Amino acid sequence: MSEFELVSHIRSRVVRDETVAVGIGDDAAVLRPAADSDLVATTDNLVEGRHFDTDCTPRELGHLALAVNLSDLAAMGARPRWLLLTLTLPEADRDWVDAFLDGFLALAGTTGCNLVGGNLARGPLNISVTALGEVARGQARRRSGARPGDRLVVTGSLGGAAAALELGADAPDALRTRLVRPEARIAAGRRLAPVARVMIDISDGLVSDLAHLLSLETGAEIRCADLPAAPALVEAIAEDSRRWRLQLTGGGDYELLAALPPEADLAALAAAIPEGLTEIGCINDTGGIGCLDGDGQPFEPGGSGWDHFRGR
Amino acid sequence: MSEFELVSHIRSRVVRDETVAVGIGDDAAVLRPAADSDLVATTDNLVEGRHFDTDCTPRELGHLALAVNLSDLAAMGARPRWLLLTLTLPEADRDWVDAFLDGFLALAGTTGCNLVGGNLARGPLNISVTALGEVARGQARRRSGARPGDRLVVTGSLGGAAAALELGADAPDALRTRLVRPEARIAAGRRLAPVARVMIDISDGLVSDLAHLLSLETGAEIRCADLPAAPALVEAIAEDSRRWRLQLTGGGDYELLAALPPEADLAALAAAIPEGLTEIGCINDTGGIGCLDGDGQPFEPGGSGWDHFRGR
Repeated sequence: MSEFELVSHIRSRVVRDETVAVGIGDDAAVLRPAADSDLVATTDNLVEGRHFDTDCTPRELGHLALAVNLSDLAAMGARPRWLLLTLTLPEADRDWVDAFLDGFLALAGTTGCNLVGGNLARGPLNISVTALGEVARGQARRRSGARPGDRLVVTGSLGGAAAALELGADAPDALRTRLVRPEARIAAGRRLAPVARVMIDISDGLVSDLAHLLSLETGAEIRCADLPAAPALVEAIAEDSRRWRLQLTGGGDYELLAALPPEADLAALAAAIPEGLTEIGCINDTGGIGCLDGDGQPFEPGGSGWDHFRGR
Repeated sequence: MSEFELVSHIRSRVVRDETVAVGIGDDAAVLRPAADSDLVATTDNLVEGRHFDTDCTPRELGHLALAVNLSDLAAMGARPRWLLLTLTLPEADRDWVDAFLDGFLALAGTTGCNLVGGNLARGPLNISVTALGEVARGQARRRSGARPGDRLVVTGSLGGAAAALELGADAPDALRTRLVRPEARIAAGRRLAPVARVMIDISDGLVSDLAHLLSLETGAEIRCADLPAAPALVEAIAEDSRRWRLQLTGGGDYELLAALPPEADLAALAAAIPEGLTEIGCINDTGGIGCLDGDGQPFEPGGSGWDHFRGR
């Protein structure tokens, strides 16, 4: 299959909405941003052997490549709109591309995104996605600005993806799904953004990503016993300390972490977020991150998050 | 050097203008599009051994990776604004990244673009750029819509990059520059867009890219003797037919090709485009592309343009 045939095939599978004036097949896409909105832009790529294993199916990869980008938009409180997809492939394998698109386009469809362009090249497998979204002017939620006394909350549950990685073939399906089929918390992000002081998605691990929300003048306290865990995680890893370490340092859950001002109505927010919202600690002025066990004693998480060049 | 240190270093080298509310270092960039403009988005990547040779310097690569994207924006008549850069590198080599940025940021600076985000990953060298631009609402110039009688024009000169590739080490500097340091015709694109019926950038070769402007009902005639050639090209390749073949089928010049309605004031346009604008033929209703030599006889260009999966 030639590059042009493959582009033409991809194009034939794509539907688009009225925000797309020109889609796949021209020199560039032409998009219609809403009036009075800011444009939110992010890009992330997946490299075989670094970000995924060879036993990931193409369909799972399609979902994953998009989900990690949508998670970054979610962390800004943005509504995802437009996608550009660059595939560097060892060969022009239509079956592989179709299976990849099954995962990619299904997630694009349920999140209201349009695939509007991209690029195909031959080389070692490398998947790069740029996601563009919109947010009301000035309403994007940043990483800086947390204050002592702010309440730390996370969406959903933590530790599932890391447990799946650790358990390998023994991982129950519910945990493996967290690893290979993460859900970007888009609706939760849009709900939290107007209230939150700061927000970030947890891709590298709670402690690691929490550090990005702190300055020299702020620190944070995490109450391990309050970390939300999925039932399958508690069943698979019953020992608290082992489970807490995964929840504190394991990446890949793509939940949102936000600091809310003390007066925020947490119950109302939690009621509006189906996957759940849990208070796990607070911002303080210690200049560091402290974790406490169920008795309020210091708990050492170990680990150090993920660095793409150094590894863990 | 760690991923975070490298991101921090890149960030320290980047300047940004008032269209960037949030730049490098958050979950995503936040950008301020102008009112009543359409957003124009494109992405392109470079893979070692496919799109460039190992003797390309990192600085040249930085220029090239950006130029090919800016050329796509130019072909829409857009003004480039924001850039996302994804580098997959075998190792976190700060010297390489700095040299790459020398080329990338110099071109970003002269074209008024802001580097606002991106991603770093470890793996086989792969450079991916997403470029975002703006154009007045509804004014982007597409590929479809050319009509018989339209006049075909190209900016600058053709064949220089292909000649450099063919001549290899014997290529004069003026031609090698065309190959490794192409200029995106941004100002020309913005000047041509309001007048042109259709427009495209010539990345794969004149005949190949011209074909994208045609439909089942249209064709085109090219007068080879009118193809603009740089003095260095005429000197290096004196034989007309050999030079014409390079100009018709060689890629990499990144000039703009446009079809203008018959009544367009070509002299006024040419006067406003410093690199030159040359009429090379016309759109007709033959359903194919015919090339004519200096005596008006058919000339067979050979070649077939570049396909990234099949090669030439």
